[in-house]
Amino acid sequence: MNNARDKTRQIRIGTLSLGGGSPVAVQSMLNTRTADVTACLNQIDALRCQGCEIVRVAIPSSQHLAAFEQICALSPLPVVADVHFDYRLAVAASVQGAAKLRINPGNIGGFDRLNAVLDAAHAADIPIRIGVNAGSLAPRYQDDRRLSLAEKLVASALEFTEHCALRGFEQLVLSVKAASVPDTLAAYRSLSRELPEFPLHLGITEAGVSLAGTVKSAIGIGSLLEEGIGDTLRVSLTASPLEEARVGWEILSALELRQRHPYLISCPSCGRCEVDLIGIATKVEQRLKEVQLPVTVAVMGCVVNGPGEARRADVGVACGRGQGAIFKAGKVLYTVDESQIVEALLSEIASLSLAQTVEPN
Amino acid sequence: MNNARDKTRQIRIGTLSLGGGSPVAVQSMLNTRTADVTACLNQIDALRCQGCEIVRVAIPSSQHLAAFEQICALSPLPVVADVHFDYRLAVAASVQGAAKLRINPGNIGGFDRLNAVLDAAHAADIPIRIGVNAGSLAPRYQDDRRLSLAEKLVASALEFTEHCALRGFEQLVLSVKAASVPDTLAAYRSLSRELPEFPLHLGITEAGVSLAGTVKSAIGIGSLLEEGIGDTLRVSLTASPLEEARVGWEILSALELRQRHPYLISCPSCGRCEVDLIGIATKVEQRLKEVQLPVTVAVMGCVVNGPGEARRADVGVACGRGQGAIFKAGKVLYTVDESQIVEALLSEIASLSLAQTVEPN
Repeated sequence: MNNARDKTRQIRIGTLSLGGGSPVAVQSMLNTRTADVTACLNQIDALRCQGCEIVRVAIPSSQHLAAFEQICALSPLPVVADVHFDYRLAVAASVQGAAKLRINPGNIGGFDRLNAVLDAAHAADIPIRIGVNAGSLAPRYQDDRRLSLAEKLVASALEFTEHCALRGFEQLVLSVKAASVPDTLAAYRSLSRELPEFPLHLGITEAGVSLAGTVKSAIGIGSLLEEGIGDTLRVSLTASPLEEARVGWEILSALELRQRHPYLISCPSCGRCEVDLIGIATKVEQRLKEVQLPVTVAVMGCVVNGPGEARRADVGVACGRGQGAIFKAGKVLYTVDESQIVEALLSEIASLSLAQTVEPN
Repeated sequence: MNNARDKTRQIRIGTLSLGGGSPVAVQSMLNTRTADVTACLNQIDALRCQGCEIVRVAIPSSQHLAAFEQICALSPLPVVADVHFDYRLAVAASVQGAAKLRINPGNIGGFDRLNAVLDAAHAADIPIRIGVNAGSLAPRYQDDRRLSLAEKLVASALEFTEHCALRGFEQLVLSVKAASVPDTLAAYRSLSRELPEFPLHLGITEAGVSLAGTVKSAIGIGSLLEEGIGDTLRVSLTASPLEEARVGWEILSALELRQRHPYLISCPSCGRCEVDLIGIATKVEQRLKEVQLPVTVAVMGCVVNGPGEARRADVGVACGRGQGAIFKAGKVLYTVDESQIVEALLSEIASLSLAQTVEPN
């Protein structure tokens, strides 16, 4: 693996380090009304419980600035100000507790306005994300027929990044999101080659509702992470932000980059299976949500791959007709009736006195 | 994109072509009891409606051979016989209507037994999948500490493939599945380099229950497909096989390789949104399931990326306060009240007289 992420500049977002080989951070964006401080803080807390590490909050207008300031003061997670159209909102947010600003080159106005934002962020000692987005490219890029969409996204990011560097501002995170997975992959790969020193924020924008959005985000974000590209991720789903954080962690876990909960291996069941495997695996998965140990648990339906996978896992079961052989650390401990499998697995997991603690929290 | 899949040998599975640049085929495996012919045929029909193109059926013992024969005779999709441990079941299946055999080098016995299967498949003029699996490697590989798991999987596949070639049997599909995404990626990449002529069947085995399994399969299968590797896929979920077929199509659609239904772009909503976007997008997604046109539909919550994405889509809506501007082919047609958005979009989609028809079926 070519680990581009080890070579990016490390920046600070509140108490969190991003880039330079830091753990890939999971973030999301509130969908509560910014003016409703209580609703925002409740959603931030729920997100924190799902492992979210950075939250973004929209500032649609100056009427939301007072609420934004309160949210920043009370949030247990670093808060990023999401600003479009009006650069003055970004300037204001920088003195109201934002841990990072997110602006969009396509709609923040010219370089003079950008300079005002850079100076404000410099004074507040906070980083900025230059978030280029296929849906809101500046018109001069939108209309350029010589460039592919990925090339337009990267050209816009390069232009703004160069301008920031000329003004001496380099505490940047970059993103180049499109709704198309191939376009997004092409854009990030090119950006990582062109600007290897800047941490990248990964995401597929407007990925869609739950299943389609999850699949698109998993392929898009996952492929880049697997290539070593990307320092933080945001899964965009037309669904609860809590689901975004969950999918984010599933991506990190699938790639074995970070793990928050036990890792469940379970087979799809087939005409060979003689227990209610989907029922057992679903119950085990539910119960494992309360366990914060990075162990591997295998729930297997038959003798084809069952003993092999159960033996390799920390704790596992290989089922036969109406019963299951419980494995731990590579050995069969005992056999229990089908109805006892879930409790037996959970009790063996509980007995694992692993010294490992789990990030974050 | 390095399209390894264009260079694989084309083989035939029933009426379906696989490899040599054929469309990447979606398959699944029944989880009904093989002896229950009616249940199996019902599940095959439901799978066909989800776009599944090949079904696999386990033959756990000789008691299931008669049912397997009936299933093959009545199935509208090609049926693959899944055989472990007893090579005689594979020999029998080859004369009972199997369109392909799937055997596992780790448990089918020695080369003599393999030869009997090869000869039977040759006589029936059907291909064989050599399905190596991390959970059921032959003991001599399992215990070899010099090799990584990916190397063991590939070594086992190479050994069997070479033996088949020596006997003149080359109608092979290969798979090297593990429950770990990184191990699986490493194995398939190596296998594609070592044996570029053989079509590859992609999958993450024992990927787990719904969300985790979907994410692991999307990253694992998706990354390989995006690299040009892989001729057919099976998503393995501890869930209904219908969900496997749905996720398979979502992977192909996300990578823009094949499309079955309209492609929905929808934003995650945020503090800027002034309509019930999740509600609208979810309703649109439900309704689009009945539409088999490969068009792009954008459901966007605000003015940041809304007009840009809605303009690029075939049909789209960019919402504002309690209403939505309906776009078609890059232009705003009219504005409707929030309550009318879903119907307006569906009516514009219906009016698209696209000549394109949709594969498969």
